[in-house]
Amino acid sequence: MRSVNTPRPATRTDVARLAGVSDAVVSYVVNSGPRPVAAATRARVLDAIHALNYRPNATARALSRGMSDVFGMLVVDARNPFFAQLVYAANRESSAHGHSLMTVSTGGSPLSLDEQVDELVARRVRGLISVHAFTPRQIERLRGQGIHVVVINQPAATPGIPSVRVDLPAGARTAVEHLIGHGYRRIGFVGAAEYRSAREHGWADAVSAAGLPLGPRVLTEYSLDGGYDAGLQLLQLEHRPDAVFVSSDQMSMGLLAAVHAAGLRVPEDLALASFDGVTESAYLWPPLTTVRQPVAEITAAAVAALVADDDDVDVVLPTELVVRRSCGCPP
Amino acid sequence: MRSVNTPRPATRTDVARLAGVSDAVVSYVVNSGPRPVAAATRARVLDAIHALNYRPNATARALSRGMSDVFGMLVVDARNPFFAQLVYAANRESSAHGHSLMTVSTGGSPLSLDEQVDELVARRVRGLISVHAFTPRQIERLRGQGIHVVVINQPAATPGIPSVRVDLPAGARTAVEHLIGHGYRRIGFVGAAEYRSAREHGWADAVSAAGLPLGPRVLTEYSLDGGYDAGLQLLQLEHRPDAVFVSSDQMSMGLLAAVHAAGLRVPEDLALASFDGVTESAYLWPPLTTVRQPVAEITAAAVAALVADDDDVDVVLPTELVVRRSCGCPP
Repeated sequence: MRSVNTPRPATRTDVARLAGVSDAVVSYVVNSGPRPVAAATRARVLDAIHALNYRPNATARALSRGMSDVFGMLVVDARNPFFAQLVYAANRESSAHGHSLMTVSTGGSPLSLDEQVDELVARRVRGLISVHAFTPRQIERLRGQGIHVVVINQPAATPGIPSVRVDLPAGARTAVEHLIGHGYRRIGFVGAAEYRSAREHGWADAVSAAGLPLGPRVLTEYSLDGGYDAGLQLLQLEHRPDAVFVSSDQMSMGLLAAVHAAGLRVPEDLALASFDGVTESAYLWPPLTTVRQPVAEITAAAVAALVADDDDVDVVLPTELVVRRSCGCPP
Repeated sequence: MRSVNTPRPATRTDVARLAGVSDAVVSYVVNSGPRPVAAATRARVLDAIHALNYRPNATARALSRGMSDVFGMLVVDARNPFFAQLVYAANRESSAHGHSLMTVSTGGSPLSLDEQVDELVARRVRGLISVHAFTPRQIERLRGQGIHVVVINQPAATPGIPSVRVDLPAGARTAVEHLIGHGYRRIGFVGAAEYRSAREHGWADAVSAAGLPLGPRVLTEYSLDGGYDAGLQLLQLEHRPDAVFVSSDQMSMGLLAAVHAAGLRVPEDLALASFDGVTESAYLWPPLTTVRQPVAEITAAAVAALVADDDDVDVVLPTELVVRRSCGCPP
């Protein structure tokens, strides 16, 4: 099924030249080692791989066998842009290693998590990237079938289960400390009941460490509508907060809409710091000050763990505060 | 792997009661016929199926065999919220019929479309929903392997290839006619070079039918950044348009950011009508007037075509103009 007039396939040297790195660095990216590669360099190499349609040998070998190794990915709901960006990055990273990626959105299905995993196992996936926590028994069963697993973005690791995660409380603390630095004294929190602990603890720690009382707390669901409802609740309070930390960019988008609809302004009437750092956060009005989760690094570490079949992986990645206008900083 | 304390499984009658419909209507939704079901009723039934975790018999049979029929779905880039919402709806619709759905984002992979399809075929998918057009030769080959295919959201059908699509020019015309009704006289167009024809023709037809000259046209890419760039280009024109029709909500989000960053206002300085009608369009500032594509109906028709294995399907669905503030209408 290949095109007849295919030009010469790109080589590793072509990729290296376009990315401005050595051949060895291309190899480190494709093989996840043996040496580490800085995130910015890795991004340049991945860009060059895609621009040139470069196929590492693993892909070529797999194609000549008629089937390559496929990874599966489980996300809750890829309508949340954070999950959509995780899937996209995992796809790029997997294919740079010669693997296809099949994604299953668990949220929309009446099947249980076990049943959805069984489906992927029956399709002979070799590795599984999951945003759902697994029990040790589930992991044992998957290993018995030769499937490697890595759990990403859970608040904590479970011993014996490979894990790539982000320091959520530290990220939340940074954002709240930034709001405190602006002089806000009544800082609220918006989060989701089921995942509240890590981000909420970061918020509470930062507020308490500054000697301030905890502002109002709204627990809702991770959705646009949840964020909108939280905004309505905050705006209806007799004693409104002057700033709020919101647990996801998707919720922040909903909350912004509630503030606009009420004829109020961010940050003048309510300052906002958010969490995730999805691409969309730069395009909202006002642009969001937000804690960026390192999506490319999360997926690179996850794929590296699958490729290396290392069961002792527990990677904890730092976040980065991206300062824009919603907190009150100048443009 | 089932839980020990499973409550009694939900029955079709339970679903019918919750949705406020007859048992027969539930059956029509699950089996895609023999009678049609109105979109609002279908949505209530799907909601009830998910709320009760109802499994139609097809799922139960498939699980007892150890493997159910899996559908594959090909999208370009699920970071575009329109594709993300298509995937979500297809997942719900597939599982209501007892099928799992595996999604492949073709945009992020160096493999060709043929190779990515081969991967899904090797995983024994039974049906394929694709936003990519296929050639008759590709369809013939897939049929030879027992795979049903339906192509969705292409501007036109190819004879012999099952197709579910939307009347794109009519949708664009409705939006542009609405802008003309507001009194705007210089109406620009933002679209993508590779898919421009259908929506652009609708814009040009409506403008010409009103006896107006065509406003400025910016061709860019389907992305946030593409929309932002288009906004910059329009705002830098010596003779700016007073309104613009934008080919996707994702582009509109980027364009809005460019207008805000320039200190200008929508609709006062530039009115906007958009296309897609994704959930996010209601949460932007100002909320978008946009042509809603019927995502639930598209995926319902696509899954029905796969289930029925009907090669003569060419469903053309209407769009709906959703009027919000970006065009100049009052809140």
